[in-house]
Amino acid sequence: MDSDAFHDQCAVMGVFGHPEAAKLTYLGLYALQHRGQESTGIVAADGKRLRAEVGMGRVNDFFTQERLAGLPGFLAIGHNRYSTTGDSCLRNAQPLLVDYSRGSLAIAHNGNLVNAHRLRAELEAYGSIFRSTTDTEVILHLIAHSRARRLVDALIEALQQVQGAYSLLVMNERELIAVRDPHGFRPLCLGQLGSGYVVASETCALDLIEAVYLRDVAPGELLHLSEAGVQSFFPFPPTRPQQCIFELIYFARPDSEVFGHNVHLVRKALGRQLAREAPAAADVVIPVPDSGVPAALGYAEESGIPFDMGLIRNHYVGRTFIEPQQSIRHFGVKIKLNANKAFLAGKRVVVVDDSIVRGTTSKKLVHMIRQAGAKEVHMRISSPPTTHPCLYGIDTPTRQELIAARASVAEICAYLQADSLAYLSHEGLLRVVRDDGRRYCTACFTGNYPLRVPWQDELLQLSLFGQEGRHG
Amino acid sequence: MDSDAFHDQCAVMGVFGHPEAAKLTYLGLYALQHRGQESTGIVAADGKRLRAEVGMGRVNDFFTQERLAGLPGFLAIGHNRYSTTGDSCLRNAQPLLVDYSRGSLAIAHNGNLVNAHRLRAELEAYGSIFRSTTDTEVILHLIAHSRARRLVDALIEALQQVQGAYSLLVMNERELIAVRDPHGFRPLCLGQLGSGYVVASETCALDLIEAVYLRDVAPGELLHLSEAGVQSFFPFPPTRPQQCIFELIYFARPDSEVFGHNVHLVRKALGRQLAREAPAAADVVIPVPDSGVPAALGYAEESGIPFDMGLIRNHYVGRTFIEPQQSIRHFGVKIKLNANKAFLAGKRVVVVDDSIVRGTTSKKLVHMIRQAGAKEVHMRISSPPTTHPCLYGIDTPTRQELIAARASVAEICAYLQADSLAYLSHEGLLRVVRDDGRRYCTACFTGNYPLRVPWQDELLQLSLFGQEGRHG
Amino acid sequence: MDSDAFHDQCAVMGVFGHPEAAKLTYLGLYALQHRGQESTGIVAADGKRLRAEVGMGRVNDFFTQERLAGLPGFLAIGHNRYSTTGDSCLRNAQPLLVDYSRGSLAIAHNGNLVNAHRLRAELEAYGSIFRSTTDTEVILHLIAHSRARRLVDALIEALQQVQGAYSLLVMNERELIAVRDPHGFRPLCLGQLGSGYVVASETCALDLIEAVYLRDVAPGELLHLSEAGVQSFFPFPPTRPQQCIFELIYFARPDSEVFGHNVHLVRKALGRQLAREAPAAADVVIPVPDSGVPAALGYAEESGIPFDMGLIRNHYVGRTFIEPQQSIRHFGVKIKLNANKAFLAGKRVVVVDDSIVRGTTSKKLVHMIRQAGAKEVHMRISSPPTTHPCLYGIDTPTRQELIAARASVAEICAYLQADSLAYLSHEGLLRVVRDDGRRYCTACFTGNYPLRVPWQDELLQLSLFGQEGRHG
Amino acid sequence: MDSDAFHDQCAVMGVFGHPEAAKLTYLGLYALQHRGQESTGIVAADGKRLRAEVGMGRVNDFFTQERLAGLPGFLAIGHNRYSTTGDSCLRNAQPLLVDYSRGSLAIAHNGNLVNAHRLRAELEAYGSIFRSTTDTEVILHLIAHSRARRLVDALIEALQQVQGAYSLLVMNERELIAVRDPHGFRPLCLGQLGSGYVVASETCALDLIEAVYLRDVAPGELLHLSEAGVQSFFPFPPTRPQQCIFELIYFARPDSEVFGHNVHLVRKALGRQLAREAPAAADVVIPVPDSGVPAALGYAEESGIPFDMGLIRNHYVGRTFIEPQQSIRHFGVKIKLNANKAFLAGKRVVVVDDSIVRGTTSKKLVHMIRQAGAKEVHMRISSPPTTHPCLYGIDTPTRQELIAARASVAEICAYLQADSLAYLSHEGLLRVVRDDGRRYCTACFTGNYPLRVPWQDELLQLSLFGQEGRHG
Repeated sequence: MDSDAFHDQCAVMGVFGHPEAAKLTYLGLYALQHRGQESTGIVAADGKRLRAEVGMGRVNDFFTQERLAGLPGFLAIGHNRYSTTGDSCLRNAQPLLVDYSRGSLAIAHNGNLVNAHRLRAELEAYGSIFRSTTDTEVILHLIAHSRARRLVDALIEALQQVQGAYSLLVMNERELIAVRDPHGFRPLCLGQLGSGYVVASETCALDLIEAVYLRDVAPGELLHLSEAGVQSFFPFPPTRPQQCIFELIYFARPDSEVFGHNVHLVRKALGRQLAREAPAAADVVIPVPDSGVPAALGYAEESGIPFDMGLIRNHYVGRTFIEPQQSIRHFGVKIKLNANKAFLAGKRVVVVDDSIVRGTTSKKLVHMIRQAGAKEVHMRISSPPTTHPCLYGIDTPTRQELIAARASVAEICAYLQADSLAYLSHEGLLRVVRDDGRRYCTACFTGNYPLRVPWQDELLQLSLFGQEGRHG
Repeated sequence: MDSDAFHDQCAVMGVFGHPEAAKLTYLGLYALQHRGQESTGIVAADGKRLRAEVGMGRVNDFFTQERLAGLPGFLAIGHNRYSTTGDSCLRNAQPLLVDYSRGSLAIAHNGNLVNAHRLRAELEAYGSIFRSTTDTEVILHLIAHSRARRLVDALIEALQQVQGAYSLLVMNERELIAVRDPHGFRPLCLGQLGSGYVVASETCALDLIEAVYLRDVAPGELLHLSEAGVQSFFPFPPTRPQQCIFELIYFARPDSEVFGHNVHLVRKALGRQLAREAPAAADVVIPVPDSGVPAALGYAEESGIPFDMGLIRNHYVGRTFIEPQQSIRHFGVKIKLNANKAFLAGKRVVVVDDSIVRGTTSKKLVHMIRQAGAKEVHMRISSPPTTHPCLYGIDTPTRQELIAARASVAEICAYLQADSLAYLSHEGLLRVVRDDGRRYCTACFTGNYPLRVPWQDELLQLSLFGQEGRHG
Repeated sequence: MDSDAFHDQCAVMGVFGHPEAAKLTYLGLYALQHRGQESTGIVAADGKRLRAEVGMGRVNDFFTQERLAGLPGFLAIGHNRYSTTGDSCLRNAQPLLVDYSRGSLAIAHNGNLVNAHRLRAELEAYGSIFRSTTDTEVILHLIAHSRARRLVDALIEALQQVQGAYSLLVMNERELIAVRDPHGFRPLCLGQLGSGYVVASETCALDLIEAVYLRDVAPGELLHLSEAGVQSFFPFPPTRPQQCIFELIYFARPDSEVFGHNVHLVRKALGRQLAREAPAAADVVIPVPDSGVPAALGYAEESGIPFDMGLIRNHYVGRTFIEPQQSIRHFGVKIKLNANKAFLAGKRVVVVDDSIVRGTTSKKLVHMIRQAGAKEVHMRISSPPTTHPCLYGIDTPTRQELIAARASVAEICAYLQADSLAYLSHEGLLRVVRDDGRRYCTACFTGNYPLRVPWQDELLQLSLFGQEGRHG
Repeated sequence: MDSDAFHDQCAVMGVFGHPEAAKLTYLGLYALQHRGQESTGIVAADGKRLRAEVGMGRVNDFFTQERLAGLPGFLAIGHNRYSTTGDSCLRNAQPLLVDYSRGSLAIAHNGNLVNAHRLRAELEAYGSIFRSTTDTEVILHLIAHSRARRLVDALIEALQQVQGAYSLLVMNERELIAVRDPHGFRPLCLGQLGSGYVVASETCALDLIEAVYLRDVAPGELLHLSEAGVQSFFPFPPTRPQQCIFELIYFARPDSEVFGHNVHLVRKALGRQLAREAPAAADVVIPVPDSGVPAALGYAEESGIPFDMGLIRNHYVGRTFIEPQQSIRHFGVKIKLNANKAFLAGKRVVVVDDSIVRGTTSKKLVHMIRQAGAKEVHMRISSPPTTHPCLYGIDTPTRQELIAARASVAEICAYLQADSLAYLSHEGLLRVVRDDGRRYCTACFTGNYPLRVPWQDELLQLSLFGQEGRHG
């Protein structure tokens, strides 16, 4: 998939009860780098004071020995924010750290609040000022407005007013609270390291620091980590889980366990199912690396067509790339991927990718594979057509830009100039994830948004998702 | 809360009604660099949207062609913040830019609010959250809490709750408001450039952009700059001006007109008065450059003793300086100043400085001049003994650290190992500035603080003044 | 002299006859980034003057729009230098640019000269001074000492004194010369782009700029590119090619054509041969990504055991990584690779890698796979045991550090704690590359160095290889 | 060759026999920053190996704790290079460090060799290659070509072939050699620090590290500092000293002792002489700060007209300055200096500067002072008209650009729009420096170049002086 397509996914990581909390958080953010490269930050506490280091760029570019040394304490939370192409917006970088009536408070958030605009308007009407443009800041204001004495109670009160997707870490000088919204849109897991605890967006962060994976934080669960140990609360009315199926399809790291599935294995299974649904007479199955690899493996396995690496990825690609002004064009995908002519020539090729967003990248890939001499190019997508934007934290383009929202599969195939094109069926998808259609949010494929706020003008909402990109 | 929060001397600069508002603001901040080198920033508006560039460091280090190009519009405000020795605190850099119920809002502030702690506590009690540790943020909250429809009314309402020193610039998408507190502690002047207007901390900023100096903003005056032109308001009950006499003695640039005085000429007059009050039998009068130059000129003129530059300043001194670990010591002042042995040898020397804070630098200077061969060293200070910390925006050490707070002039002289020491008298100071004791704040010399908040525990307040050190 | 001087694997790229020569060179270096990340540089010429931009770091970090804009002309050469762990040595970064009697001269070199020490000593004895510690500078001195009028003649004269490995680009204001040493140790290919020509270490650089691959520069061939077109010379006595077989096994990018082979296909064939020679009763074949992927694919194909991605690579790993001081250890390989527990558990696993150097990384990988629950771990290496250091430009450790130089396969297997270990046989390797043992240098597996200089004390030479470590 | 190659005014600093040699050198370079801000560097030795840190920018920007920590040893030399406006040329930054037949060698040079072009051409004809475009590299080649066994002998041999201005520091692993050319164009002094020795361009460097000033290195003297102590040689035939009088007039720091004079006192004396020669009926004498201060003090003293600071300098001016595109113009001098209207208004003003080069800055100053209300502006220059470019190391414009080369004093006065203009007479200048015309080079005022090389086409030489501009 074109990695520029889906913006605004993030990572959170928290550690409680370890003398090197900030360093472990740094390591976890390192392992979670794929969930956001725009900005990164850590807030740590030693029981008395919160200290922050938040900045633009990647974890290992921003954090230095000195910066980590300035974050002592047994308690820390961290955040990676997804990369956008716009100008830097340091003021939106997380964790957010503020002072309020009961001391200091820091927050790190993965997700998107659907009623943030209304809450923000209300808060502003009551005199609140906002220094960031993130929905996350709303939660801080709600906490600060609570009359509750304890942070955990104030947070619950705040979250009862909030609707949307959130895997959230909140800390003060002494406590760490981890919450996952009632629908559980975004993942969040709990691990143990010695006598300390770790919460992270994905289990790969636990693996790196050799923490033991205990379990997922459940949808609607709030974990309170303090000197008293870990306490679990379920402060929200029970509701049906709506876990983001796209985490399994594309977003999570393949070595993570997400929503009870090994991501790599799910993706392989999607590929196998795709092969059953949409076979192709071909000589070789190649993935769009790296995200398409597992599905291509599954497709190859099921179809019996040999798997191979026909597209080579240049992993040194950075943020900036200077194109020549003349003579050479369309570097978009070429700078990242190159087709291996030697064995594509004369072949009938199945190309497996996880999804198609705008279609422009896929079109270039088909062209590139054909240029490499392929006789036929059969595109296979290991998810259903993406017809609707995500409202819950994955930065998708507007409906107008989603090619599957305005074109049939046949039309898309013609646009891509592929010999054939097939998507995985919605039923096939649900079968693989062993879902009766009740555990996952598949709104991006169906438009059945599990959470819709009455006042919300969808067109407005959609347009909000289109341009500057993001709320947090 | 950081103890450095409430004590920064700073510069403000604003432009209304010029197509290159941000660039003119940049130039003004350049001219006002002496008022703060820690951070700098500009917020500009084009009638629709506010854009900010705020960062650590000096004006010409932080601002690039690209950054200025990102600040279009006819309206801009800027700020330089005073350099402290602590770690960088980008979140306190100004102008602060926030969103609130009526749109966006930016503020730049020179001064110090004496009831900020109480107001902050109250605001927090009502649920406000603070992202900076500056007193300035309080004003934004108060504006946001106002029910007034127009910004100018909301600001007036806010300022009626605030006590302390402020020369303030506030802007939204279309309007610029400049206010000086009723006592007029900090300077603020108004200029004209073509059909546009300029407000700045000092007139030297006007000179650089060739704006015409119109007049000072009066103590207690609020100027509203909008499409309707400039409107003047006096929204506060009249009170006695308490203009900071230290601006004239040390802080302002000598080529500025401040409080109706040319700074250079006032300083020369202070030196003349000092010569009358405390003559010395000497061969040469030398200044501590650069700030002591005008007073030394005046002293020399009045006394008839030749003026000369006996201390040479290295203007390339930067923020960081690496001292050798052994063998060489006490670089403090040497890296900045060197005594010119050639003509100090055998001479009786009068050294003129504007003030003594802790006494450590003066002691090193006396030693350095003696090492250069001077037969006698007579220290003359062109202001009275600094016995009390400033509560209104100049960063002074605690009383305990002010040498004149705990030692007599004779004791200080002994500490400095000078042959004689004399300060300007309080009466002499007032005579020079043509004041009957009613136009200026001289609390740092007398302890007669014009503004004192009942609940305010002075010791607490004083301890807040402790961390940094250099007056400035 | 720095011991890192003579051992860099690198990339070269040159363009002649294109108005955007420097930009194309930049793109080529981008595609060749895998051959060196320490420093990068480009020298360009417009017929009159040579201009250089050379600096530390990666291509897309160092080169900016401004830097490229400062390199006009139709002629350019570029270089990527291999990353070493020592301190930065900008003075060794290439291309080297010098002035000499006939104007200016720039050179970019991939390889290693075995008689550089002697030549340097001779040159110094005659009064030459050296500003870098690279062997490459020797060639410049030899050119400058030549009496030949034309650059091409002077270069030939210089190279007749030089022994070793070199794929070399030399340019002056108007001409570009590309040479490959008589043995052809390092690759070099020729492409065409419009009416211009391109020379590059690997064909993947041609692909990116859509140049047409014409052919390899032959061992011992010198190409002279000038206004007169391309001229080919064979100025050296014919000798047996000794092309570096390690380029095929590990170094080159899989989508390149090197020495007449598609690299990816060769590596797959090595894997197939390995499967024939050293089968394993196993449930899954996994590669050490990314370099082990093709061989693992081949092994799986031949053995019929399913291929899968059991180790996940974090591609965001940067140069610096801050390890925790306590509690967590052995991050070496973990920060880069993570084992996917979900499907390794209970499995008999074949792990395929391209080579083993010191054995420490392999040992950690075996441990990691076992920790992930694998029942058996069978290590398969798609090349013979690496028993001797490379003298021709690949940065290998000393013999003492090469585990296969001092331990038998059984001993290595025990050290790795693998259930079995097998290397590809030397015969198998040669069979795959269709060599009767006469076209390739396999000295690293056999110690049969094709080029040995009498005076050369091998122990000295070997100790020179000691500092760095990673084969490259 | 770059036209900026042969024209740098610079600083050199060396330390022998102190355990913190590099740190002391750093401090000395700090004190000598006024002699060059383009690049800086230090090479240090510990008896075995030379290590270098050389980079662009100022001393306290480039040198960090880490960089200094990488320069251990008892022996070090350092260099500051003059700032030019061209692009960065790191390869010309000094000290230059090379390897040659007898080990390593580093050199730092202040001055300009007039026969460098010929020597370079000869060396190139014999096969030498040049990596910098500085004349200094020539000396290294000549040393390397010498058959002498000892460095000191090789250096003497090299310098016997060289003509021009040089204050030179050369070091190897164990020895430091300081030489001043037979004419002694540039200054160089010797100091003692404990049991170690210091050599520096000016004595202000000694003052900072509290080294005792012993004496100047004499014209034509070579000092050899080694374990054996300090040895003095006079290896050149005796000749008449030609010390650069411009060091006294402008270049050196006022607190330095140069050529047996205290710089500040000489400048004051020049001002007094100027007052005698060219009195003016005026109300105030003001300097162009900072360089014009001493002469203005002298002028005021002699004339009895009061001295004052009528132009205020902004010391925060950096390298880059962004001018507005429209509305405001001619920032050139305004960004640096502002006229103090308050006391210039209505006054007859004498403005004292040290020299006029192109006249453009002076013209703007006269305009600025008049704008500030001055009734009359009398320009007084404390040196004779600068009619000829310097061939010996001060970066002056070509003759064509020197206003005094093509216009009479009356014409210049008219151009400046001053009420009167007077320069110091040549005789007056020599009287002040107590010279019978035989100790100083005054070629810039007379065109009597003490050193002229027959083959040297003067026009060519002059054109080489053209690019930069600011005398320095």
